[in-house]
Amino acid sequence: MNIILFEEKELNDGHVLLRDHRAKHIVKILQTGLGDFVRVGAINGKIGSGKVLAIKSKYPFEVELLVDLGKSPASPPSIDLLLALPRPIMLKRILSQVTALGIGTIYLINANRVEKSFWDAGILKEEEYRPHLFHGLEQAVDTRLPKIEMYHHFRPFVEDHLPELISKYQSCVIAHPDSKKSLAPCLAKERGKVLYAIGPEGGWVDFEIEQFLNAGLQPFSIGPRILKVDTAVVSIHGRISHELER
Amino acid sequence: MNIILFEEKELNDGHVLLRDHRAKHIVKILQTGLGDFVRVGAINGKIGSGKVLAIKSKYPFEVELLVDLGKSPASPPSIDLLLALPRPIMLKRILSQVTALGIGTIYLINANRVEKSFWDAGILKEEEYRPHLFHGLEQAVDTRLPKIEMYHHFRPFVEDHLPELISKYQSCVIAHPDSKKSLAPCLAKERGKVLYAIGPEGGWVDFEIEQFLNAGLQPFSIGPRILKVDTAVVSIHGRISHELER
Repeated sequence: MNIILFEEKELNDGHVLLRDHRAKHIVKILQTGLGDFVRVGAINGKIGSGKVLAIKSKYPFEVELLVDLGKSPASPPSIDLLLALPRPIMLKRILSQVTALGIGTIYLINANRVEKSFWDAGILKEEEYRPHLFHGLEQAVDTRLPKIEMYHHFRPFVEDHLPELISKYQSCVIAHPDSKKSLAPCLAKERGKVLYAIGPEGGWVDFEIEQFLNAGLQPFSIGPRILKVDTAVVSIHGRISHELER
Repeated sequence: MNIILFEEKELNDGHVLLRDHRAKHIVKILQTGLGDFVRVGAINGKIGSGKVLAIKSKYPFEVELLVDLGKSPASPPSIDLLLALPRPIMLKRILSQVTALGIGTIYLINANRVEKSFWDAGILKEEEYRPHLFHGLEQAVDTRLPKIEMYHHFRPFVEDHLPELISKYQSCVIAHPDSKKSLAPCLAKERGKVLYAIGPEGGWVDFEIEQFLNAGLQPFSIGPRILKVDTAVVSIHGRISHELER
């Protein structure tokens, strides 16, 4: 936890009272004392410092901070992810990892090779996935909570949402092992926002790929190696970031 | 498991008898029958097909294959990793992920912020880390087992091994948040082999960075976001691969 995050509604006249794992972290890991400062941030807001005004260093832990926010977080991520819903345990890891790497919106969609039961997973409830996004922000020292959108049906997503969605991006790319093109030539010369799509374990089926290509996504391959979805998501995020920073 | 791997010594006049998780995988997941073919590969050798000659589809599973090897695996990875020993659970994930992504050698070294107890972890025994490398190869359809080298002491490593080691690479880079340079200008224009170094949680200490810079490693930053070691390892592997493929 490289920053202590709180929600706007927790702020009371410049004071925040922490009573959960954040208080425990300040007491046990940071070992902060009265009058010390910790790095704090308001969700979707600014970053600053919190002065420890009161501390209860035995269970149940409690820390009162006087916060002073002034700094904007790192520039907003220019990468969004379109992801065929992966298995719950993998989704958790992906959510915190891409949040740490920097992601604006994660679109979770259905696909032929997505197991139906994945859509019943508890992790798809906001109260269950939010902590994983928080972990990512706390790791990366960011305050901007990624947006999560879910589309339980492939066809309505592709027909009703995708056309408008891709109009928001300078580049829309889809990892597809059969493509002869590498990533770089698939990204628009003008930088700006990038949407990248990663399929389910076993890949998209032909019909799905066809729909994406018709919609204008550019297929790219990163070579013959077959990667797990979480490895592909992180590795390709790195590739796109690298290209955008060139 | 996208390929069934076996060791040279398991090969008996073109036949391989499987009696472990590989047999189970063929029976339960691939649901292969008599006379069917599965993709096989010899560790550090070639890739081909295995014809199912005999199968015992109840526990204990058993599959006999007649193998025909002819194809070389994907080109050998041109990236090596120098890694401050991470906590065991993270190391497992990193080993299989970088093996899947393609890595030649992983140098595990000590650093000031490496917890001493990590060096006692079971995962550092060959019989315990090999399965994680195998997972990576089975995922990526590769047969080339990465080499693992361990250096329990930082100073002897830097003084006695590093100079010779870096002479084998066209580019040696080290992730260092304080650097003003991005990755691309730190990589040599002539492609070839790249060594990238990733520090422990909390980073290298000044003395260590100094030693690496003196030895000739180029420090680069990927921006202000602080990443977990496993995320950094995979994401930066993606960045380097992308740059090498340009």
